[in-house]
Order: sequence, then C-alpha cells, then structure tokens
Amino acid sequence: MTSSPEAAPFAFEGLDRLFHERARLGIVTSLAGNPDGLAFSELKRMCGLTDGNLSRHLAALEEAEYVAIAKDMAARRPVTTCRLTALGLDRFVSYLAVLETALKEGTRATSGKGRSPAVALKA
Amino acid sequence: MTSSPEAAPFAFEGLDRLFHERARLGIVTSLAGNPDGLAFSELKRMCGLTDGNLSRHLAALEEAEYVAIAKDMAARRPVTTCRLTALGLDRFVSYLAVLETALKEGTRATSGKGRSPAVALKA
Repeated sequence: MTSSPEAAPFAFEGLDRLFHERARLGIVTSLAGNPDGLAFSELKRMCGLTDGNLSRHLAALEEAEYVAIAKDMAARRPVTTCRLTALGLDRFVSYLAVLETALKEGTRATSGKGRSPAVALKA
Repeated sequence: MTSSPEAAPFAFEGLDRLFHERARLGIVTSLAGNPDGLAFSELKRMCGLTDGNLSRHLAALEEAEYVAIAKDMAARRPVTTCRLTALGLDRFVSYLAVLETALKEGTRATSGKGRSPAVALKA
C-alpha cells in the first residue's frame, strides 16, 4: 500500500526491508565499516550468526546487488570475501536517514513532548 | 544464537523484533504519542495500513501485552480503541535505545570515520 507522508506520517516507507531486518542491519553495518570486504567467517563472528543464517541473508543482499561475494584461495584454503557495493552503500545511507527520522519520532512520542499530527488536528 | 556484545558487536540483540518490524514501528510510535489511545480507523490512516494488516500486527502486540484494545460504543457505533500499555512503553523506550546505538554504528561505518573492531584488532 503506497501512501504519502502527509496521509500516513508513520508508514516509514523508506525503511527498505532488505536493510531493516535485524541480522541484515548488522551484516551491512559490518561491511560498511570495512570497504575492502570481510571474510565470511569474520562477518559471521561480528554478527553472531550461524553459517546458514549468514548465507541466507547474504544471498538476499547479493540478489539486490547490495553485496558482492568473491571466492578466492588464501594460503591454499578457499576464502569467501563479502563487500558492500557502491549501490549498497548508497541505498544504506538513504535507509539510515529514514531510520533517523523514525528514531526521532519514536523518541519524541515516548518523551511526551510531541503530540502526533492526528491529535494536533483535533486540538 | 546468543552472544555477548564483545563477541558479536553487530548482533543488535536488543532490537526486539516485535517493535522492529516496519509496520509495528509505525503503530507503536503512533500509540506512544497518544497516551489516551487511538481509534482503529485513525491508527490505520496514520500508518498507511489495510484493515487486515493492522489487525494482524495489533494481535501480535496485544499478545505480548504491549498494546491494549477496547471495544466501546460511541454515538451508537462500535469503536475500537488501541493504546500502548505501561509495559509496552517501557519496552519500546529500551528498544529505541538499542536502535539509537545501531543508527550510530551505521552512520559511523558509512561516514568512513569509524573502523570496525575487527579491523582495529588487525591494524
């Protein structure tokens, strides 16, 4: 359902579900801080995920072309390296801007200082 | 999989999935800003949701006792009023604190100023 911010101020439509899922938020944050990429095993440790979970989330991010995955050999052992693409970084920055708005709205609402537009209209 | 923040700094375990889901984040933010509650129809408008979607998310929040739902009559018409419980508000404030941390980590990582703990250890 598409709606304008005026009509539905709390729809938070810019919260791209690909980034908003908790595990993927951790994965993308880890990769954003490591522009040269991270080994699968290191990423797994940083995000506290199992092999299966990390693989599944990486596949979703790779399909959207937000993440690139390369398989190489290092010291005769196969190493899978994951990195954020330029597109992924760009979209993640946009996502974070919407997340910041959502956080501000939540903080304002819970602090009791802000009243929602609905109440303001009724007042 | 449970892990300490030191072992898995980007696991973001405090991001309660009940609040983190995009539609529910909008619902709870709307209710937090209206302590006296909101009519189902008003909440639906503010969050840009369909009847079915809003009902489904409210049921999940009610089951966790984060939201209370009351059915009354107003001007001879049935009105469903939803409000955040004290427990819901308390947990939502905790969720927002973790969300703030996640946002800061994301902003730091994408700004290129912060390096992740993994890289810091290798340097």
